[in-house]
Amino acid sequence: MPNRYRSVEWVDGTLRVLDQRLLPAVCDYLDYSDYRDVTAAIRDMVVRGAPAIGVAAAYGIVLAARESRATDLAELIIELNQAAELLQTARPTAVNLFWAIDRMLDRAQQAVDVRPEVLKDALLQEAHAIYEEDIWVNKQIGLHGLELVPQDAVFIHHCNTGALATVDYGTALGIIRTAHEHGRKVFVYVDETRPRLQGARLMTWELQQLGIPHRMIVDGASGFVMATRRVDLATVGCDRVAANGDTANKIGTYNLAIVARAHGVPFYVAAPTSTIDLSLKTGAEIEIEMRPAQEITHIGNEPIAPEQTEVLNPAFDVTPAKYITAFITEGGIAYPPFADSLSIVVQKAKELIRQMRKGSL
Amino acid sequence: MPNRYRSVEWVDGTLRVLDQRLLPAVCDYLDYSDYRDVTAAIRDMVVRGAPAIGVAAAYGIVLAARESRATDLAELIIELNQAAELLQTARPTAVNLFWAIDRMLDRAQQAVDVRPEVLKDALLQEAHAIYEEDIWVNKQIGLHGLELVPQDAVFIHHCNTGALATVDYGTALGIIRTAHEHGRKVFVYVDETRPRLQGARLMTWELQQLGIPHRMIVDGASGFVMATRRVDLATVGCDRVAANGDTANKIGTYNLAIVARAHGVPFYVAAPTSTIDLSLKTGAEIEIEMRPAQEITHIGNEPIAPEQTEVLNPAFDVTPAKYITAFITEGGIAYPPFADSLSIVVQKAKELIRQMRKGSL
Repeated sequence: MPNRYRSVEWVDGTLRVLDQRLLPAVCDYLDYSDYRDVTAAIRDMVVRGAPAIGVAAAYGIVLAARESRATDLAELIIELNQAAELLQTARPTAVNLFWAIDRMLDRAQQAVDVRPEVLKDALLQEAHAIYEEDIWVNKQIGLHGLELVPQDAVFIHHCNTGALATVDYGTALGIIRTAHEHGRKVFVYVDETRPRLQGARLMTWELQQLGIPHRMIVDGASGFVMATRRVDLATVGCDRVAANGDTANKIGTYNLAIVARAHGVPFYVAAPTSTIDLSLKTGAEIEIEMRPAQEITHIGNEPIAPEQTEVLNPAFDVTPAKYITAFITEGGIAYPPFADSLSIVVQKAKELIRQMRKGSL
Repeated sequence: MPNRYRSVEWVDGTLRVLDQRLLPAVCDYLDYSDYRDVTAAIRDMVVRGAPAIGVAAAYGIVLAARESRATDLAELIIELNQAAELLQTARPTAVNLFWAIDRMLDRAQQAVDVRPEVLKDALLQEAHAIYEEDIWVNKQIGLHGLELVPQDAVFIHHCNTGALATVDYGTALGIIRTAHEHGRKVFVYVDETRPRLQGARLMTWELQQLGIPHRMIVDGASGFVMATRRVDLATVGCDRVAANGDTANKIGTYNLAIVARAHGVPFYVAAPTSTIDLSLKTGAEIEIEMRPAQEITHIGNEPIAPEQTEVLNPAFDVTPAKYITAFITEGGIAYPPFADSLSIVVQKAKELIRQMRKGSL
């Protein structure tokens, strides 16, 4: 793996995606020029992590626009909507996918009396804006998180939330690295995160690159660690947050939250406001993606269970709001009651991003 | 895998051990005639499961006796004690290892005025008794468990507690199969049980053989399952139970117990009384074995984490007594307060085993 890497990046008119399926052993980039292939790349987890998926989908809309031969705006917009419909089928749980696609379609709807080529350029600029904002958002999350991190901080963390899960910097890992960069003494217990081992494969690798000390554990050892060693805080990312604070994130997050509560360890969710879905009242409305049995029954091509073993393989779980100490967003920290505080940070974030884009931040 | 299998068995003067490390893909038996190799087999987990380890160690003492050239009893007993010292180093947590060795040494101490050959025969008979009792104990546990299993029962289970973990029949799986054999409608969610995947490799295979419907999940999905589906009871085995009911068992058991409590799911520990260690006041006194990093960083020889990733790999955790609904033993069911009830079932079991050996049960 090179030191400089991007999960997704626009290069010479194509979308370059770091294939995360075989990291860190194999580092391979794939170039996409067809939004249908981008859809497959998201579904097959070539790219993963809610923020990174959103950015990939935005560039997917750009690719759809560029392949269009529409001669007027209306026709182009119909084709963009068709592409959006396909891209939206890639994965159901992370709202960033839908958020980014909606933002791109909104941008298209704003076009009036211009040639299709002008809209195509505008869409590329909008995708670039989503891309750039993601990095800014992560760094803001890191800075807000600082006030919750003690001078000498032992974290426990589930899944991967670093540069690989985003455009750059990371969400929950963004908090950890900001603390590290600000001279706090930081240590991280890393859940390996079955079944796809994002903790073992990606989080450990990013922490190594950053020089942040850590130890990996199996997911079932978090209770042992909290019962026998000092753990100051648990941090995770998220794939969709409902208006009441119920939070969908990588399977195993809910267990970690319950175990953290049993040990009095605060449980923080790093949440770009693009992941907050105020249209859903509670987590019961979040669709949970079920993934193939093979993800559990095999490691690579090697079987680890008898043939025909039946499995239940939810990719995510929903942590009820009552287990969450606070959300750390680019708009600030949201404490309970979340029904109030989440709308406030969402509004605040919108205002900040507006200022940032005007260059006044 | 054949349908008829024994984890450990005395065959023609050697200890035949089913190598569980590559099950179910590869079924291989290893024959041991040196107690030093039996020690290594226990340490390397060729044989695993607290009851099976105990029986293997008992036959290890037999092998030590048979290799001895001692010409008098005192000399033989010194050699047996030396062998016992080595065997006891194999693994620290499961008390059955120490219990079985102590029982063999006690038997040796009872020998008075006999030739060494007579004691050697007596030791073989004692090991056979431990072996036979284990099967009887498991079946009693299964029968006692029946009263806690509803007519239509959904279990969640951690690790493997079947015939492979014992001499035959199983402890927690013994309860599940007794219910199945008594016509109850049984379904089992099987924790894959990282890092060594005893759930994925062994429990699923045993359930398949028994025709008991089940689905495997990653360990981190137990909260998802309990929150979204019906689960009637959690059952696990154990490696050592302190006098107050604190229980060491496979890493991940404690997390499952906390999660079960959060969902109001009763948490039952199947415990042969040989696993109850009344000499320890609480679980804080139980030594927890730390195992090699490679168990987590590799699957087989395949790395799943960056080179030099540091890990914390406790083989067991301690579930505090307050999370345990009841212990199911061959002496009956022990409910809280365990400080009283555990001694009662231990006494009751001693009496029952005495009667069983006299043939009156």
